[in-house]
Amino acid sequence: MIVSCPDRVGIVARVSSFIASQQGSIVEANQHSDLEAGRFFMRYDIQSGAMSAAAFSAAFGPIAEEFSMTWRLSDASRRQRVAIMVSRDSHCLVDLLYRWSAGELDCDIPCVISNHEDLREIVGWYGIPFHHVPVDAQDKLAAFAEVERLIDTAEAHCVVLARYMQILPPALCQRYAGRVINIHHSFLPSFAGAKPYHQAFERGVKLIGATCHYVTEELDAGPIIEQDIQRVSHCHGTQDLVRLGRDVEKAVLARGLRWHLQDRVLIHGNKTVVFS
Amino acid sequence: MIVSCPDRVGIVARVSSFIASQQGSIVEANQHSDLEAGRFFMRYDIQSGAMSAAAFSAAFGPIAEEFSMTWRLSDASRRQRVAIMVSRDSHCLVDLLYRWSAGELDCDIPCVISNHEDLREIVGWYGIPFHHVPVDAQDKLAAFAEVERLIDTAEAHCVVLARYMQILPPALCQRYAGRVINIHHSFLPSFAGAKPYHQAFERGVKLIGATCHYVTEELDAGPIIEQDIQRVSHCHGTQDLVRLGRDVEKAVLARGLRWHLQDRVLIHGNKTVVFS
Amino acid sequence: MIVSCPDRVGIVARVSSFIASQQGSIVEANQHSDLEAGRFFMRYDIQSGAMSAAAFSAAFGPIAEEFSMTWRLSDASRRQRVAIMVSRDSHCLVDLLYRWSAGELDCDIPCVISNHEDLREIVGWYGIPFHHVPVDAQDKLAAFAEVERLIDTAEAHCVVLARYMQILPPALCQRYAGRVINIHHSFLPSFAGAKPYHQAFERGVKLIGATCHYVTEELDAGPIIEQDIQRVSHCHGTQDLVRLGRDVEKAVLARGLRWHLQDRVLIHGNKTVVFS
Amino acid sequence: MIVSCPDRVGIVARVSSFIASQQGSIVEANQHSDLEAGRFFMRYDIQSGAMSAAAFSAAFGPIAEEFSMTWRLSDASRRQRVAIMVSRDSHCLVDLLYRWSAGELDCDIPCVISNHEDLREIVGWYGIPFHHVPVDAQDKLAAFAEVERLIDTAEAHCVVLARYMQILPPALCQRYAGRVINIHHSFLPSFAGAKPYHQAFERGVKLIGATCHYVTEELDAGPIIEQDIQRVSHCHGTQDLVRLGRDVEKAVLARGLRWHLQDRVLIHGNKTVVFS
Repeated sequence: MIVSCPDRVGIVARVSSFIASQQGSIVEANQHSDLEAGRFFMRYDIQSGAMSAAAFSAAFGPIAEEFSMTWRLSDASRRQRVAIMVSRDSHCLVDLLYRWSAGELDCDIPCVISNHEDLREIVGWYGIPFHHVPVDAQDKLAAFAEVERLIDTAEAHCVVLARYMQILPPALCQRYAGRVINIHHSFLPSFAGAKPYHQAFERGVKLIGATCHYVTEELDAGPIIEQDIQRVSHCHGTQDLVRLGRDVEKAVLARGLRWHLQDRVLIHGNKTVVFS
Repeated sequence: MIVSCPDRVGIVARVSSFIASQQGSIVEANQHSDLEAGRFFMRYDIQSGAMSAAAFSAAFGPIAEEFSMTWRLSDASRRQRVAIMVSRDSHCLVDLLYRWSAGELDCDIPCVISNHEDLREIVGWYGIPFHHVPVDAQDKLAAFAEVERLIDTAEAHCVVLARYMQILPPALCQRYAGRVINIHHSFLPSFAGAKPYHQAFERGVKLIGATCHYVTEELDAGPIIEQDIQRVSHCHGTQDLVRLGRDVEKAVLARGLRWHLQDRVLIHGNKTVVFS
Repeated sequence: MIVSCPDRVGIVARVSSFIASQQGSIVEANQHSDLEAGRFFMRYDIQSGAMSAAAFSAAFGPIAEEFSMTWRLSDASRRQRVAIMVSRDSHCLVDLLYRWSAGELDCDIPCVISNHEDLREIVGWYGIPFHHVPVDAQDKLAAFAEVERLIDTAEAHCVVLARYMQILPPALCQRYAGRVINIHHSFLPSFAGAKPYHQAFERGVKLIGATCHYVTEELDAGPIIEQDIQRVSHCHGTQDLVRLGRDVEKAVLARGLRWHLQDRVLIHGNKTVVFS
Repeated sequence: MIVSCPDRVGIVARVSSFIASQQGSIVEANQHSDLEAGRFFMRYDIQSGAMSAAAFSAAFGPIAEEFSMTWRLSDASRRQRVAIMVSRDSHCLVDLLYRWSAGELDCDIPCVISNHEDLREIVGWYGIPFHHVPVDAQDKLAAFAEVERLIDTAEAHCVVLARYMQILPPALCQRYAGRVINIHHSFLPSFAGAKPYHQAFERGVKLIGATCHYVTEELDAGPIIEQDIQRVSHCHGTQDLVRLGRDVEKAVLARGLRWHLQDRVLIHGNKTVVFS
């Protein structure tokens, strides 16, 4: 259960009392007060009691209204459906598929969509449908209409851009706001845009990084979920940065997606609250 | 407010409702359920409402009893008193004094106690009394009786061993259980005991570390509060490990002490819950 | 070219002059003087000149003798052959196979040997022979005789224990000294032996780690090649440590093996010089 | 001894043979070939033999000319003189002074220059002259003329801006090119310019950093010597970022300055080769 509302006295008491009254047990609780914004965020992992989710929601409605809450209740036993989009680079895709098969990512993967054929075989090995949607530089909208159709057909709750090298059109970004996760291969806001490792090499930085963020209309500027870095030196050429960066990208994307799937990420303006 | 008790349904509801009923506002909340031990831990940072701390405590008594709670309420405006014990190495002491003067450590430092005279001057510069208590190898108990007297006179809530190279006698460990914080210059449980950097060099490890822990009768085996590491290589001799290790020791001790002073560390058996 | 010898004036001059006289170009040079041991180590990555490797070696002989050098010349264009041994855990194996297929590990993998059948399928997908050698607790030597036969048949230069949960017999350790690489799932020397994550959980450490080392007769006590850690907290149960530890194990083993394959690791006593 | 020159066969042989012929012993050697730029860099730490530094230099001249070398020989026994400039923030200054007094920074500190009076006392405690040079916003050039005079009088080889919040005029940057070291409180190129922690908070990054770099005319764009980061979360307000960032700034500046003093940093275009 995720709640965000204007901060005031008594929120926790009211919500936790309600849950207790429903014989619900709070397994994990996270709270955050953003003092500057005057806003309160909470996440309760509840072991259901007597009531059904629907009944719970109905009964909770008046409380939510009283506190002007934005809230949602997710059934942890219902696995989210995640569509993955890739281009030619396999490292993030293979890492996600392995973690998924090992039970680290609690979701279904109804399909993988790519603008190239390269990764069809490994996707097939995991028994997941692979859709090739070439993106014609002259008519990108046709390709993205097909992408949108595939996502809808897959009933995906969330889309992961696992090094998908195309920019999504604004309409798609808006429609799936807060549900499209990208991995950018730099420590944003440094080196936004194309070829970040080349930019990093040119600038002579001593650390390279990766950033997992929600996609918004503005390129590489959406709410950041997770970041990490890797130390490099003058010994490393651009190709070494690419190689070393792959490990950071994999780790950062896997953590960000895992937290998203566990409903641990709350978006607030252009920032996130991550109850990791 | 710190609470620990057997885990069951309704704790949060009862406590938070009580706080709300006293017009208390929860500024920060942390909770943890240890599923294996069946124990619940919580820390509430409460902005006081109408009631005094004493009245709050009295009124909360019955709830605490009902849930078999171990609990305490600390007045954040009352600064804790921290006695620091040192030997000859200055880095941890100087770091603590600087952070204290910069407002990073919310405490009073009534005195520094040392078995050597070396650090008297810097302590004096910060306007803190310095007590020299030599430890005679033939009669350590006399020295520690004097140390105990000084700690009592200083009304210290907590004692920090900032590279104090003597082993406290068991009676002292017991009397101040959970209130004596040590920094050990290795990544425990590796290299417990004397000369950990020499041990690390001999073993050829690629990382060195430091551990901040509560002191218990068993040497270097108390509950761990915080640890960190630093990468090293074959290029580094023992003296380099000592030098690089100093930075880790300083950082780990400062974090551990800060959390202790903010009542963020709960001891449970030989482990800690740290609401950092 | 790898050289180790007693330290004295003129080694670099003599070796580099010899290489220049053969029209060899030094692409990368690493040197280390162990002042305590009075020993000198060097690694030169040489772009070959006019001479063949055999002629080079013959001509270099007298210099090596003069300086009492232990040395070897490896042909970087000849890929080493690496046999991988696994049990049931797949994460290290899958990671190595992926990196190998992506060109990150410059070697051939003639076979994978396991005491269980579980990982046959993924090994087959990469086109690598899989040998199942069950280890009968009553007669381990028979199993290891078969393992030895398979390694010999594979003409493996090096053996990687990628979470192979059996202890190699002393004779095997001796025969392949400096050529068997193990990944241990703790920050050695902490938590040697069985079930390190359970030990780490019991001790309440705040960091978990992994260690890549050469196998010697003494369990988990061989020369360390690489180590790394991952931060954990009271929130993490044993299963979380296992999950988080997998990522450290994978990274540490991959780095250690890569350096070994590039002849960047020099063993000296029970320690390593790693020219990474 | 520092050498940089166009890469070609025989450099190491020629230089090391020359050193051996002078009975010089190479204690530490570092080399780097920038393949893209076709340039070779080397650093030799030489234990002097029979010849004086002047005689060595004279005799080495022809070799340097033959290979078109840029080179310098520094006498490690002659301590460099470092002038420190500060504003009001004390953490970097106090850290440098402590490390200096502990022998970690092998240099003399002839003076500290500040545009405020705040830090006079601590500087005096270390027995170092403190010069107050207020910077009048209407006439900055007068102030910097005085700064320049003080640096000249101090015969400083190098100037450290330890959180000096003023921008040096271009003429000063040019005159001391490669000799002025700044600590910027962000992970450059992110958040160049003013108030980087506020920028970081606004952007919602999950890591904050610090960058030690040489000062050039272009603000925060000079060659980077060292960088590091610290993990943060939604829990941290701007003031927390400032507090946590102080530790990163101190560590990064101390490492960068130490390497500079040991002649381990070679500037090449807008990048550095750091033989750390």
